[in-house]
Amino acid sequence: MTLKMDQAELAAFLVTEFPQVEKRFKVLSVTPDGVDLRRAVTQSDLRPGGTVSGPALFGLADVAFYLAVLSRIGPEALAVTTNAAIDFMRKPAAGVPVIGSARVLKLGRALAVGDVLLRSEGQEAPVARASLTYSIPPRS
Amino acid sequence: MTLKMDQAELAAFLVTEFPQVEKRFKVLSVTPDGVDLRRAVTQSDLRPGGTVSGPALFGLADVAFYLAVLSRIGPEALAVTTNAAIDFMRKPAAGVPVIGSARVLKLGRALAVGDVLLRSEGQEAPVARASLTYSIPPRS
Amino acid sequence: MTLKMDQAELAAFLVTEFPQVEKRFKVLSVTPDGVDLRRAVTQSDLRPGGTVSGPALFGLADVAFYLAVLSRIGPEALAVTTNAAIDFMRKPAAGVPVIGSARVLKLGRALAVGDVLLRSEGQEAPVARASLTYSIPPRS
Amino acid sequence: MTLKMDQAELAAFLVTEFPQVEKRFKVLSVTPDGVDLRRAVTQSDLRPGGTVSGPALFGLADVAFYLAVLSRIGPEALAVTTNAAIDFMRKPAAGVPVIGSARVLKLGRALAVGDVLLRSEGQEAPVARASLTYSIPPRS
Repeated sequence: MTLKMDQAELAAFLVTEFPQVEKRFKVLSVTPDGVDLRRAVTQSDLRPGGTVSGPALFGLADVAFYLAVLSRIGPEALAVTTNAAIDFMRKPAAGVPVIGSARVLKLGRALAVGDVLLRSEGQEAPVARASLTYSIPPRS
Repeated sequence: MTLKMDQAELAAFLVTEFPQVEKRFKVLSVTPDGVDLRRAVTQSDLRPGGTVSGPALFGLADVAFYLAVLSRIGPEALAVTTNAAIDFMRKPAAGVPVIGSARVLKLGRALAVGDVLLRSEGQEAPVARASLTYSIPPRS
Repeated sequence: MTLKMDQAELAAFLVTEFPQVEKRFKVLSVTPDGVDLRRAVTQSDLRPGGTVSGPALFGLADVAFYLAVLSRIGPEALAVTTNAAIDFMRKPAAGVPVIGSARVLKLGRALAVGDVLLRSEGQEAPVARASLTYSIPPRS
Repeated sequence: MTLKMDQAELAAFLVTEFPQVEKRFKVLSVTPDGVDLRRAVTQSDLRPGGTVSGPALFGLADVAFYLAVLSRIGPEALAVTTNAAIDFMRKPAAGVPVIGSARVLKLGRALAVGDVLLRSEGQEAPVARASLTYSIPPRS
């Protein structure tokens, strides 16, 4: 699979397109399967008991898969999430970033489908698993 | 179904348990099926094209169903989301709060299951639909 | 919403397009929201403990939503399921048909989205809940 | 992770517990992650256009993950599916069995969570991807 955007291009894309959130994210690598993305965990992401909020984990999965799709189709597309399913499995480690490893399973004409494993940095057992579908606008 | 918490009690619960986010939410009503919850949309919730971010919509669905479960079992339980599936269907209206209507479909010993329809305030067609499962800790 | 197929036309469509399975199904009604469909439960649908198999319930949800979409767009389209999420909530009643009540939440140019509540005939509490997305081929 | 059932024991379990369907399935291997299971495709599994029916693919995913869980906890448990989400991505190859590769991501006290990739035998690109949650009854 040829790549249309590398790590540096994805990082620059985050800065211009997601100015509200880009500081939280760091593109770790573009992998043969997709993209590895790290999300910092701040005080406002925490919930009672010290756990990371569901929306914060969902957002990481969503952005990781989005970047994985863009790395394959390039920055011109305005893809939108149409569907997501997420399983929360373990409490994330306290005070540690979470890493999402996204893989692209299908890159069709109209839909991209894939999934993301989320792990606390330095830990093997996943904290969550998400599957996502993006609708890709017609490309000329 | 007997209720354990009414609208005012749920609102007070939000203030003490979710101080990071409670200002965004307003409990509109406790319904026979569940709870209606409104979420304000701020600049930081918006994404390119003026749409409301996926995590913001996910968070609304998650909190709406959580409150719906608590209205039935009371505040003592520390329930956690184990699974969520969400379909994003339409672009939310610009500058308008989003309302989540949660219904509880099952309230079992260990799991609560339900779904949430999300609509821009004043509009009939839903912007998203979510189904959620919560794990309920053992009650004495 | 104008209807393109009524109860009799959907029943005839089942006979010609799903000859392997049509005898199990009966279209009960075309509703303002979608379609109500009944599935007979046979010995081969049962699993240890007398429960109805997951694939049998999934198949009912899938066909009910498919017919609900066709009732709105007509029989010419060859729509396919792209995504389904199903929650199994209660054990179905023994020896009783299961009824799926499908509602169409979005009927877009390329995607149809909706959900289905499944109940044992004569019972109020749902046995399962499914959400489904269909991809609709381009219409001329 | 220690295994409680090997390939031969899972095959014998299928024969006694799933007499309605066991002839369709063959346990290919117990892997470090889970189980690989093959499902034969018969005429009654096909739909218009020669595609394999959704319920047939769902059933393969469900049984594959079930056996993967049993290989870790042993045959005594009567686990039931509580949730499944499935993405249908490509049309399966005609006249070819489908193989489900299940991996166990969490094996908790009360819930088991994992996912399954489905491929037509001999092909790399997946035809579907499913995530599943099983409820595990209390073990003594």
